Amino acid sequence: MFGSMQNVPLLVNGILDYANINHNEREIVSRLVNGTIHRETYGQAHLRARKLAQALQALGCGKGDVIATLAWNTHRHLESWYGIAGIGAIYHTLNPRLFAEQLSYIINHADDKFIILDTTFLPLMEGIADEIKNVKGFIVLADAGEMPDTSLQNVYCYEDLLDAQSGDFNWVDVDENAPCGMCYTSGTTGNPKGVCYTHRSNVLHTLVANSADVFALRSIDNVMPVVPMFHANAWGLVFAAPAAGSKIVNPGPNMDGASIYQLLTEEKVSFTAAVPTVWLMLLQYLEANKGKLPDLERVSIGGSAVPRVMLEKFERDYDVSVNHLWGMTELSPMGTIAQFKSGMEEMSFDQQMDIKVKQGRAPYLVEMKITDDDGKELPRDGKAFGHLVVKGPFIVGEYIKGDGGEILDEQGFFDTGDVATIDEMGFMQITDRAKDVIKSGGEWISSIEIENIAVGHEGVAEAAVIGVVHPKWDERPLLIIIKNDGADVSKEDMLKYLEGKIAKWWMPDDVVFVDEIPHTATGKIQKLILRQQFADYTLPNTKQAAE
Amino acid sequence: MFGSMQNVPLLVNGILDYANINHNEREIVSRLVNGTIHRETYGQAHLRARKLAQALQALGCGKGDVIATLAWNTHRHLESWYGIAGIGAIYHTLNPRLFAEQLSYIINHADDKFIILDTTFLPLMEGIADEIKNVKGFIVLADAGEMPDTSLQNVYCYEDLLDAQSGDFNWVDVDENAPCGMCYTSGTTGNPKGVCYTHRSNVLHTLVANSADVFALRSIDNVMPVVPMFHANAWGLVFAAPAAGSKIVNPGPNMDGASIYQLLTEEKVSFTAAVPTVWLMLLQYLEANKGKLPDLERVSIGGSAVPRVMLEKFERDYDVSVNHLWGMTELSPMGTIAQFKSGMEEMSFDQQMDIKVKQGRAPYLVEMKITDDDGKELPRDGKAFGHLVVKGPFIVGEYIKGDGGEILDEQGFFDTGDVATIDEMGFMQITDRAKDVIKSGGEWISSIEIENIAVGHEGVAEAAVIGVVHPKWDERPLLIIIKNDGADVSKEDMLKYLEGKIAKWWMPDDVVFVDEIPHTATGKIQKLILRQQFADYTLPNTKQAAE
Repeated sequence: MFGSMQNVPLLVNGILDYANINHNEREIVSRLVNGTIHRETYGQAHLRARKLAQALQALGCGKGDVIATLAWNTHRHLESWYGIAGIGAIYHTLNPRLFAEQLSYIINHADDKFIILDTTFLPLMEGIADEIKNVKGFIVLADAGEMPDTSLQNVYCYEDLLDAQSGDFNWVDVDENAPCGMCYTSGTTGNPKGVCYTHRSNVLHTLVANSADVFALRSIDNVMPVVPMFHANAWGLVFAAPAAGSKIVNPGPNMDGASIYQLLTEEKVSFTAAVPTVWLMLLQYLEANKGKLPDLERVSIGGSAVPRVMLEKFERDYDVSVNHLWGMTELSPMGTIAQFKSGMEEMSFDQQMDIKVKQGRAPYLVEMKITDDDGKELPRDGKAFGHLVVKGPFIVGEYIKGDGGEILDEQGFFDTGDVATIDEMGFMQITDRAKDVIKSGGEWISSIEIENIAVGHEGVAEAAVIGVVHPKWDERPLLIIIKNDGADVSKEDMLKYLEGKIAKWWMPDDVVFVDEIPHTATGKIQKLILRQQFADYTLPNTKQAAE
Repeated sequence: MFGSMQNVPLLVNGILDYANINHNEREIVSRLVNGTIHRETYGQAHLRARKLAQALQALGCGKGDVIATLAWNTHRHLESWYGIAGIGAIYHTLNPRLFAEQLSYIINHADDKFIILDTTFLPLMEGIADEIKNVKGFIVLADAGEMPDTSLQNVYCYEDLLDAQSGDFNWVDVDENAPCGMCYTSGTTGNPKGVCYTHRSNVLHTLVANSADVFALRSIDNVMPVVPMFHANAWGLVFAAPAAGSKIVNPGPNMDGASIYQLLTEEKVSFTAAVPTVWLMLLQYLEANKGKLPDLERVSIGGSAVPRVMLEKFERDYDVSVNHLWGMTELSPMGTIAQFKSGMEEMSFDQQMDIKVKQGRAPYLVEMKITDDDGKELPRDGKAFGHLVVKGPFIVGEYIKGDGGEILDEQGFFDTGDVATIDEMGFMQITDRAKDVIKSGGEWISSIEIENIAVGHEGVAEAAVIGVVHPKWDERPLLIIIKNDGADVSKEDMLKYLEGKIAKWWMPDDVVFVDEIPHTATGKIQKLILRQQFADYTLPNTKQAAE
């Protein structure tokens, strides 16, 4: 007897359709890997994404196929996401910072059918070509004149593929709960695990991201997603900006201070988002060059905790509002953002910074609490700390292929692995990572993996890796070793031993030799105590980096 | 093989849960029908809504039951919506401005089981008690001491019902596509038709309403929904404000300039929304009393077109940003809002007003176009005008009980009945109402219904009703009569004849007698030509109202 509302599914391609109809003239500006600045409109991107969809179908791709991207933030990478999703396939972002073995593991685990990549990543892909035999071909984000020589087989030129198509294409109908995108976690323990976003989860995340107390993107905004698209679903900005009709300014591969500053000013960027390391480089550049940021209104910083000094510099010296953000791949990725509540606008600067240095409060559709080891909720008093668990329609329910088994508790909450406090006003602050991951420049380094390799050395009895504060990268790994009796092992020996076994940027900044490593009753290394012991430890070369 | 995101349904009660957890301390301030100001927090409202849910279950209500509300905007009315929806029942807002016959028709058509109402509406309900025999009882929004005598049967006191419950209650599980709310259109032709909102449609509307380019509600906002909750789903504010953690300031029944001004200033309202008539009264009050609006930042105006002079006064004299809004009951209700696009911030004041006087542009999740009579899309050039049709997940798919039959076209678009232009930047402007409805103070008057009654008079050969411009009410009805040969009918006769047959505020402001009324080939009255003929007609008493 009841009427009904229209049955319109929540599909990400509707976002680009919306931008095409309502913000056709707004631009996507991109710095390409060849250094040039490229401009196109949402209208053009919409056409090109449909051409890519046709091209992918012509290559035999369709519903449920996984198509990987290994690329910097450019218009082509953005078009790829929509073109892939538009045939009911799944975009799968590959992180080029991963070690080759992890990359090939992920490509095989996800069953990637094609890989779309920047020219700069061809050597990386050539190096693992023998390990990823199921990949049917490679699409290089370049025009015909830019196509490099490569030993890869079945290589296609992106622009040639598009040129061969009309763009007269209707997105393929899929259920809103169909898989849409994939991103693997860095795998702090064991193999990386994959998160599969649905059309619905991406659309709901977009709506929340654009709400006034989150990113608050408006049509008048010029948005620069410095955060790479291969990093935690690009913090949702690839969907949020076109859904708001904002201009997009893609930095491509160049994230140094000068390059970022150039785009911020020339494109009058009003909103941007990135990890602290990028902003450290920008602030250093600004100070060295007496730069100003007259157009920049808001910057969202996440990936690792915002240093208070960075927060204060942006707010006081450059009149830019900083919003601390916390999220993870498993949350699409947004969990919290530090936006003021009533009364905080009138507080003193120092009080405001006390609030903004916290990771922030949950927006609508994110349910969040802290619990003790028995799953009992702990008080929201800013003092009690416990496991941070979350629930919501854009939070992971299970990993790809069921890896890790059942990951939700009885009430449907996902354990983030973070340990946090929540205060009376709902502001959450991360106090620890349960698994002791090291965060370097916004990327994670697995202490346990390095430890496992290090103990393979004949002279090592036990190894522990902890993060030590670093002025540029936030944290860098310190390798702590107990030698075998009578063994003669030097720092240089250990680093040489690790070389080639872990990614270069995972290499510990220093190695120290100790007589004892503290353990729990069950034999686990007590990282907390180790961190206390090395709290004042100065890594080599940090003085130079800080200047 | 793919993983999945959490299966969390979009339910409106999750909004109040969110406010309770994250904005527990924020207030709902209400002017009650007894004139006093009442204050409670979201935490208290959450408890009281759960108590009401328990009370409704104790009265035998459950999933799928329809429970009507006939009330002004107060905390109790807000609690009622959540309490009703929280047992899987359906809130059904009744408009007290409707004529008694329409009210009883709607109550019976919707099969209302209980009616929750303000004390002030008891006489209205007593007058139709004999016509609504299926209603099982009435809940009066009052405490025991305020309960008036009434001839109604099975009358309950709201506060007594709550006092008897613990509030220890979990919302009943329902599907997100389950019915959640109901609102009937005013019925310009024939009987009113009902729109049934789902939990999903209300939640999606909430997310869009809170996006930065729509209402942009933030936790720091103090929000006054002057638009009544019985008017087009309260423009979504009953859900949007708690989802943002904004303070709510409910005006109750008092919408005169002095009362509104008092709440705006004392409660530091930053955002408010209402029809132009309310703002006309406020502006008159401000001018007469040299009032200021230092806290008010944004006002959304809809229901009927915003007069340019009103727009300019708010913007220039009071530094308040006006956002013209267009919507309808069938759209939950938001269709468009006039928010700037890039470049418009730098335009001259006059150019900006040219844009803001239009009804605005579609937010994400509203698809909108204009078509000719054959359904062919017309250009977005600001000149072509055609049928305004819309599509989206919070737009009606069918009326309650299938009234009106199939209402979507082959592509799934709903014809709004409005005629409009859309310009190159996507700004829509209503040029006409296809069905010639008269909009008086934001409420609709059916010209056809008055005509049908008027021709019942023995002296009348034919009658037409058109809207004529009125300085206070925007439009008022003018009754145009062709007398029967030899009949002796005066203006006074006609008005007396209509009295009691139509709502008082539907009474034509004037009656004119003519020799001819223009018709189309198929015999329909040509309203367009009539309006042209009476374009300069001045209604009695308008000079006084304009001053």
